[in-house]
Amino acid sequence: MSFSFTQASQQAWQWLESAAKFSETQDADVNGVTRCCATPQHRALLDELSQWMASAGMSVRMDNGANLIGHYASPEPNARTLLLGSHQDTVPNGGKYDGMMGVVLPLALVTYLHKNAITLPFHIDVVAFSDEEGTRFSSTLLGSKVLAGTFNSSMLQDSDSEGISLGEALRSFGCDPDRISEDCYRPEDVIAFLEVHIEQGPQLQQSNLPIGAVSAITGIERHEITVKGVAGHAGTVPMHMRHDALVGAAEIIRLVDSRCKGTDELVGVVGKIENMPNGVNVIPQSTTLSIELRSPDDDIRRQARKRLLHDIDTSLNALNLGYDHRQTYEQAAVQCSTWLTDTLQSAIQDTRIEPHVLFSGAGHDGLAMAQLCDIGMLFVRCRDGVSHHPSEAIEPEDLTVALEVLLQTCQRLAKEPSLTLP
Amino acid sequence: MSFSFTQASQQAWQWLESAAKFSETQDADVNGVTRCCATPQHRALLDELSQWMASAGMSVRMDNGANLIGHYASPEPNARTLLLGSHQDTVPNGGKYDGMMGVVLPLALVTYLHKNAITLPFHIDVVAFSDEEGTRFSSTLLGSKVLAGTFNSSMLQDSDSEGISLGEALRSFGCDPDRISEDCYRPEDVIAFLEVHIEQGPQLQQSNLPIGAVSAITGIERHEITVKGVAGHAGTVPMHMRHDALVGAAEIIRLVDSRCKGTDELVGVVGKIENMPNGVNVIPQSTTLSIELRSPDDDIRRQARKRLLHDIDTSLNALNLGYDHRQTYEQAAVQCSTWLTDTLQSAIQDTRIEPHVLFSGAGHDGLAMAQLCDIGMLFVRCRDGVSHHPSEAIEPEDLTVALEVLLQTCQRLAKEPSLTLP
Repeated sequence: MSFSFTQASQQAWQWLESAAKFSETQDADVNGVTRCCATPQHRALLDELSQWMASAGMSVRMDNGANLIGHYASPEPNARTLLLGSHQDTVPNGGKYDGMMGVVLPLALVTYLHKNAITLPFHIDVVAFSDEEGTRFSSTLLGSKVLAGTFNSSMLQDSDSEGISLGEALRSFGCDPDRISEDCYRPEDVIAFLEVHIEQGPQLQQSNLPIGAVSAITGIERHEITVKGVAGHAGTVPMHMRHDALVGAAEIIRLVDSRCKGTDELVGVVGKIENMPNGVNVIPQSTTLSIELRSPDDDIRRQARKRLLHDIDTSLNALNLGYDHRQTYEQAAVQCSTWLTDTLQSAIQDTRIEPHVLFSGAGHDGLAMAQLCDIGMLFVRCRDGVSHHPSEAIEPEDLTVALEVLLQTCQRLAKEPSLTLP
Repeated sequence: MSFSFTQASQQAWQWLESAAKFSETQDADVNGVTRCCATPQHRALLDELSQWMASAGMSVRMDNGANLIGHYASPEPNARTLLLGSHQDTVPNGGKYDGMMGVVLPLALVTYLHKNAITLPFHIDVVAFSDEEGTRFSSTLLGSKVLAGTFNSSMLQDSDSEGISLGEALRSFGCDPDRISEDCYRPEDVIAFLEVHIEQGPQLQQSNLPIGAVSAITGIERHEITVKGVAGHAGTVPMHMRHDALVGAAEIIRLVDSRCKGTDELVGVVGKIENMPNGVNVIPQSTTLSIELRSPDDDIRRQARKRLLHDIDTSLNALNLGYDHRQTYEQAAVQCSTWLTDTLQSAIQDTRIEPHVLFSGAGHDGLAMAQLCDIGMLFVRCRDGVSHHPSEAIEPEDLTVALEVLLQTCQRLAKEPSLTLP
């Protein structure tokens, strides 16, 4: 072949290095990458990406939500579209791979197809989503909501730290935010949305596997509990007369940890705690803490919540402590489509890798895209499970495996018209 | 009699109300009393106290540590001295009774003795200690260290929040700090030091008793432990792979509480906790907490510490967590003299109150005075155990009982020359 698979993978690696330079920071290896929506760094990246897309035989357009979309057309009449892609933006001082890897890998795939004159019975649209992290405007999943048709125009009023609204920023970026609603795909035109992303956790490394198929994107709920005790002199109040709020908080931390350790497909944490008055010689009067539960199965999560809140109530009553509780957040889990996960699994087997299914404990553009179409995700092993950090790292060999799985997946879809035709 | 017991008690109550006006705050009932060492409020109080002392037949002097001392002389040749008193200073926005009650009550006693021409075979010196709380110069027990001869002249360099040193402040107050070492009592001249103080805890109220004799002033030790975990994404790291520092901290809180609840004459608290990075969706990386243990019996405290540190080590190891530990403070307990506690007990029985012995969980001037002489303490019930707060409160009837016990104690000592003569 005129353009080998290895060349395509090496090309993807070079693109990742190039993309990391479009950052507010200097030296991504030390300071990480900071690239936010509708900024000069975003503009410079899209200019470069457009050239890469064009040289891969794609037509390129930016929509009114600042998503860049490369279109690799199928010669088939009535062809539907397979959406591939991920987000171009980062958290502050984030890594080189979170998001961007899921943009360049499909681009390397299309480059390989194009240079080898391989056509498919469906179109491929590669999307560089404008904003998933929400770093600049504190509103996540901007780009994918635009494509899914769930973008709420009230988000245009959200402003960044300098008071610039999302609407103003998009307009300066060359978009017409008033026409965002025209940018959604029609469900009947879309086969599915497939995203490749670093795992952001240690499971694949632990299992010594380069990649894994994702079963679902986690559901999340958060709570705030304030344990109400009675302050007192830490020397003069006998133990049996104390109402120590921090002792109650410690019991909650234990209950959350124990409930999650004892339940499959459930994780949870008390990440935040504030104690008052927080003096070495004062019995704590009130302690406020957060509880977060995540599960790919909403029933498991809700059942765990119910039992946990019951146990907390019982324990705090036994300690003669009052408390206030409020749930602050809830987001349902999104299941990846079984047919797509199965196809990914088969493609993984094609590459002689042991298939492994895991759920995503972090949120992704698939949460929004699931409103439009079936979704699937492929995770790539990341070193020590670290992400959102300059030390975020992947292995070039794993990139090659992921690229091969993408290709195998497309070829499997091409052989199964039932999956791709209207 | 020309001056009744009831009148003496009412006088003490009025003095407490008057003294509360010498404060940086307005309206002590709302804002509490703030009176620090060597300030205009201290000066105004001493001027007033001097008059009260003089009218009780006492000679009055201020020493070089700003202690005010009223001397009620015995007609006996070779008489020794019974020291009575407490501190005049307060914590910021403190109560009207903590300290000051132990000054005016002996003063009311002497007034009663003087007005009824009662003499004793020993002198009574009533001391208004200049500084016990350490509010202004962060160095506690200033006044009592001066009397005990343990004042370290390096303390004169301690400065307040405006940069004024203790030495400068004392000089401006009319003291000669270079002569502080001359102000200590000679041990052979002193019978004992007896202090009346509010309990600062709820035990007497709980037992429905107005007063109680103190067995010992607690020993105190403090520790700082930093539990060292590994930060991580709260969604992507499986439960069994976590090293959650806050889970370890919760176990320490439980162990401290449980060890203290299960051990007589031991109290302890984790009063302070700082968690990092303290985000709702981040696995805690490190958590630092304080541990304080108090006991009137140093052996009990040290034994408990040993077992506690062993249990903490075992638990954190089991949780795969590292930790740093350092002991930050230790102060040995001071025992009240048995003969004096026994005399107080008998005096309490004289007033038809059930005798009750408790230990002091808070520090007092007796800690320093014990270096000079035998010490004893009498606790007065305070409402709901609250102190160091504007709502600190006592009952006038309890003041009368305490005054009667003071009188009975003096009369019992007068009848037992073996206790008071050289």
